[in-house]
Amino acid sequence: MAVYEDRYSDNRPGEENWKSRLYDIIFEADTPAGKNFDIVLIVSILLSVLAVMLDSVSSFRSAHGTFLYNVEWFFTILFTIEYALRLICVKSRARYATSLFGMVDLLAIIPTYLSLFLPGSQFLLVIRILRVLRIFRILKLVKYLNEAEMLIEALKASSRKITVFLFTVLTLVIILGSLMYLIEGEKNGFTSIPLSIYWAIVTLTTVGFGDLVPHTTLGRTLASVVMILGYSIIAVPTGIVTAEMSLASIDARERARPKITCEHCGNQNNDTDARFCKYCGTGL
Amino acid sequence: MAVYEDRYSDNRPGEENWKSRLYDIIFEADTPAGKNFDIVLIVSILLSVLAVMLDSVSSFRSAHGTFLYNVEWFFTILFTIEYALRLICVKSRARYATSLFGMVDLLAIIPTYLSLFLPGSQFLLVIRILRVLRIFRILKLVKYLNEAEMLIEALKASSRKITVFLFTVLTLVIILGSLMYLIEGEKNGFTSIPLSIYWAIVTLTTVGFGDLVPHTTLGRTLASVVMILGYSIIAVPTGIVTAEMSLASIDARERARPKITCEHCGNQNNDTDARFCKYCGTGL
Amino acid sequence: MAVYEDRYSDNRPGEENWKSRLYDIIFEADTPAGKNFDIVLIVSILLSVLAVMLDSVSSFRSAHGTFLYNVEWFFTILFTIEYALRLICVKSRARYATSLFGMVDLLAIIPTYLSLFLPGSQFLLVIRILRVLRIFRILKLVKYLNEAEMLIEALKASSRKITVFLFTVLTLVIILGSLMYLIEGEKNGFTSIPLSIYWAIVTLTTVGFGDLVPHTTLGRTLASVVMILGYSIIAVPTGIVTAEMSLASIDARERARPKITCEHCGNQNNDTDARFCKYCGTGL
Amino acid sequence: MAVYEDRYSDNRPGEENWKSRLYDIIFEADTPAGKNFDIVLIVSILLSVLAVMLDSVSSFRSAHGTFLYNVEWFFTILFTIEYALRLICVKSRARYATSLFGMVDLLAIIPTYLSLFLPGSQFLLVIRILRVLRIFRILKLVKYLNEAEMLIEALKASSRKITVFLFTVLTLVIILGSLMYLIEGEKNGFTSIPLSIYWAIVTLTTVGFGDLVPHTTLGRTLASVVMILGYSIIAVPTGIVTAEMSLASIDARERARPKITCEHCGNQNNDTDARFCKYCGTGL
Repeated sequence: MAVYEDRYSDNRPGEENWKSRLYDIIFEADTPAGKNFDIVLIVSILLSVLAVMLDSVSSFRSAHGTFLYNVEWFFTILFTIEYALRLICVKSRARYATSLFGMVDLLAIIPTYLSLFLPGSQFLLVIRILRVLRIFRILKLVKYLNEAEMLIEALKASSRKITVFLFTVLTLVIILGSLMYLIEGEKNGFTSIPLSIYWAIVTLTTVGFGDLVPHTTLGRTLASVVMILGYSIIAVPTGIVTAEMSLASIDARERARPKITCEHCGNQNNDTDARFCKYCGTGL
Repeated sequence: MAVYEDRYSDNRPGEENWKSRLYDIIFEADTPAGKNFDIVLIVSILLSVLAVMLDSVSSFRSAHGTFLYNVEWFFTILFTIEYALRLICVKSRARYATSLFGMVDLLAIIPTYLSLFLPGSQFLLVIRILRVLRIFRILKLVKYLNEAEMLIEALKASSRKITVFLFTVLTLVIILGSLMYLIEGEKNGFTSIPLSIYWAIVTLTTVGFGDLVPHTTLGRTLASVVMILGYSIIAVPTGIVTAEMSLASIDARERARPKITCEHCGNQNNDTDARFCKYCGTGL
Repeated sequence: MAVYEDRYSDNRPGEENWKSRLYDIIFEADTPAGKNFDIVLIVSILLSVLAVMLDSVSSFRSAHGTFLYNVEWFFTILFTIEYALRLICVKSRARYATSLFGMVDLLAIIPTYLSLFLPGSQFLLVIRILRVLRIFRILKLVKYLNEAEMLIEALKASSRKITVFLFTVLTLVIILGSLMYLIEGEKNGFTSIPLSIYWAIVTLTTVGFGDLVPHTTLGRTLASVVMILGYSIIAVPTGIVTAEMSLASIDARERARPKITCEHCGNQNNDTDARFCKYCGTGL
Repeated sequence: MAVYEDRYSDNRPGEENWKSRLYDIIFEADTPAGKNFDIVLIVSILLSVLAVMLDSVSSFRSAHGTFLYNVEWFFTILFTIEYALRLICVKSRARYATSLFGMVDLLAIIPTYLSLFLPGSQFLLVIRILRVLRIFRILKLVKYLNEAEMLIEALKASSRKITVFLFTVLTLVIILGSLMYLIEGEKNGFTSIPLSIYWAIVTLTTVGFGDLVPHTTLGRTLASVVMILGYSIIAVPTGIVTAEMSLASIDARERARPKITCEHCGNQNNDTDARFCKYCGTGL
């Protein structure tokens, strides 16, 4: 989630200068204008996503279809202008256009234009809802980026252990699901191995829809094993992530702990309990 | 959850003095009278909340309607007297009346009086049940306030990370729900995007009501992804809160275990029962 | 879970001596005879519990009623003899009979004798199943007592925080359930506040039976809040217990860390990094 | 999960030499040939497991039965050749054949040959799906073995505590289930104690299928207790595993961060970049 940084330098004359100012407003949130732009943008995104959701409710669409149509075009044109401005003020248009956020920005406007030529509104509706991803720009605004990065770091550090865990879980549900298919069989609704694996996932993750349940004593016994297994092994991903986050918290604490500066050599990195500078040996 | 502290000082003559004693009884739990008052109050709150609950059970109401009506008025008058006493013995009535507990105290009595003029008993019933919030005064009584504050501290310290997490979860359920709407469609009950998002929340949080379930192979595959995702990412809020609480526990432990510093070599890590520095052998 | 310790001393003559040996066999697991007794007892308990379970399955009872009847009397007489032997070999019969395990031992045999005079087999069946509690004697046998005590210690240490948590959860479900009763109402199955609170518990704990689900948009929105709340706040009890267990693990580690003995004063409690005895100041 | 190591030494002449090279390809993943072999093998396993799954889908089998039959024989012959090669290149055939992976390798091919003589395809189908276990060889390939071993270590270290926990959970569900059988009874679907225990497991583990739900007020109250219990005690296994993993993480960290000991005062806590002891100022 590296911040996209591709602006013109501030100290350029003429045309480049207003592009730099535009960049500050659109891409940054340090200036009042930049903050206001972000707020307007986020409200627009939320309203347009809400409009997409309501568009899928048939009773609402039949009652307020024209209104939704107008709202949709209003936001599409707004986001089109915004996209154009972003293209104008970045130095490398190709780099922006192929960045993750650049593609999401484009995806936010394309479906509406496509709907002029294509039917299949349902499919386009779902693409339009991807606009919600643009909301992650809000993280930049409210300084939550730091917490997000810490979370991502912890998840990255534990990704290998989590992969091994998921791998084991998938093997477990394949075997347990197949056993259940053998035990319960088609007459009790476990009509195939893939469906039984789906049931094993529903049960092991403690979701328990209840659309498919065991009816034989043996099946219920195996189901009990699956449930207690699922109830217990959730401790594993939790333990992995927690251990990683505890380490990160302890590290952050360590970094925040005050240090003593040596007056002789200027070393700023002495522990608070040190009586002599660790670099020059001078008494502190 | 700062304790409300707004009493008259103890060493005042005449009228202020009995107000101060009344304040001790009603607002504090240090004196025997104060403790007894709190116990009577808590039992009254629990009984009145129970009465409100039973009032909503139509079979019980039709059988014991008059009894419930009398009970309700009994507790309302009791709480009204209590509210009046609270108003009398605090120094600043406005400050008490606008405090959180002050408003809850008022909310506990208003609905019954309103019911004389307004029908809509169901709505007033639910307001009356907010009396249960008054039970939090019990924390003061049994010295659990300290544990509660520690929990709130840990939650506050991790609130930013939890916000980022909830933010990601909401984005996830919007996208996953929309995809499910596309895959399953109206014929399988996923009649709109908001309903599909509701399904995604039900599934990701591992609740799994089962009122809405996928019927296509692709839908079940996506549902499996949602379930395993929900089963795994619950590790994130748990890890956040646990790391914070572990730090708080270690800190509390550290503070409780003092160490002696050696004056000769500066070693700060001697046990409290040590008589000689463990590094340089100097007497402590 | 203090071990019951009420034996005759070993070095007594005549009658007291065989009682002491009997005590060793029945109450202890250090001798081969004591171990064998415990294994036979545990198998008997498991078989008798299994018999009670099967007794409740009507198809099995009608087919093998006489067999179950005989099995039940066999185990009852066996446990009666065992109970008599326990009474004989303990020093204070009153103390054993009123101890937790003493009462469970008695509960294991009474129902069968009562069934001679009383009908209501279902109620007695459930009392008979309490025999399963006797299985906790197994902990003594297989040296798991230590782990069990560590778990109980950690839970005790966090019991106050967990009480505050449960207290908050109960208040939450009362308010959320009442709101749901107001929103969904009787026409959607939320016929009373107690039932709606039951629904709130089912949803907040992520169980999600699905026998009662919201049907209105507002109800589904509130349900989503309840589910995400339940999904998030499970982090709180987990964090509480984990922090306590981490501390206990660190402590156990500390205790297990080797210490240096001072040759001069005999102090065995010097840290491994100490160069001088902390009590007498002698170089190590 | 010890790695199977039973090869001929590399520096032997003639026949033993090509066996050693074959061993490198089949059992190891260090050489390019070995890596390619593993990739081909894993793809084959996944495809054959997919074929087994599809074989259980009756609509697919009736449409593409011959194709599935051919695919099955193709993979069986492939795995038979592989099994033969494994037998050839290991030094001790008996040891390989009786190892866990050796038996899984055999189980992967036997069912297809048996199907020539035996009907009961469903049973053989499930044995064939055990092939999925062979996929764990992938851990060797992608160096995830280390993470897997760390997880297994942490689980082993906490296995005793988890056993005590599961033991308590089983006792709980037996007693709670029996109580539920008494309260709800046959008329509400709780037809026997084993079924009621199954319900208690479904509820305590927060799975909540909803195929069996309480209908009486008392039953719903007990169910609420079971749910809140299940919601709370999931903290116990999580706490156990997390505490163990945190210790392992801290240890790994500690080992990775060496410290310098001061020869003068014995302080072992100097940073690696220190040139003077932080307590006594002596040069290191």
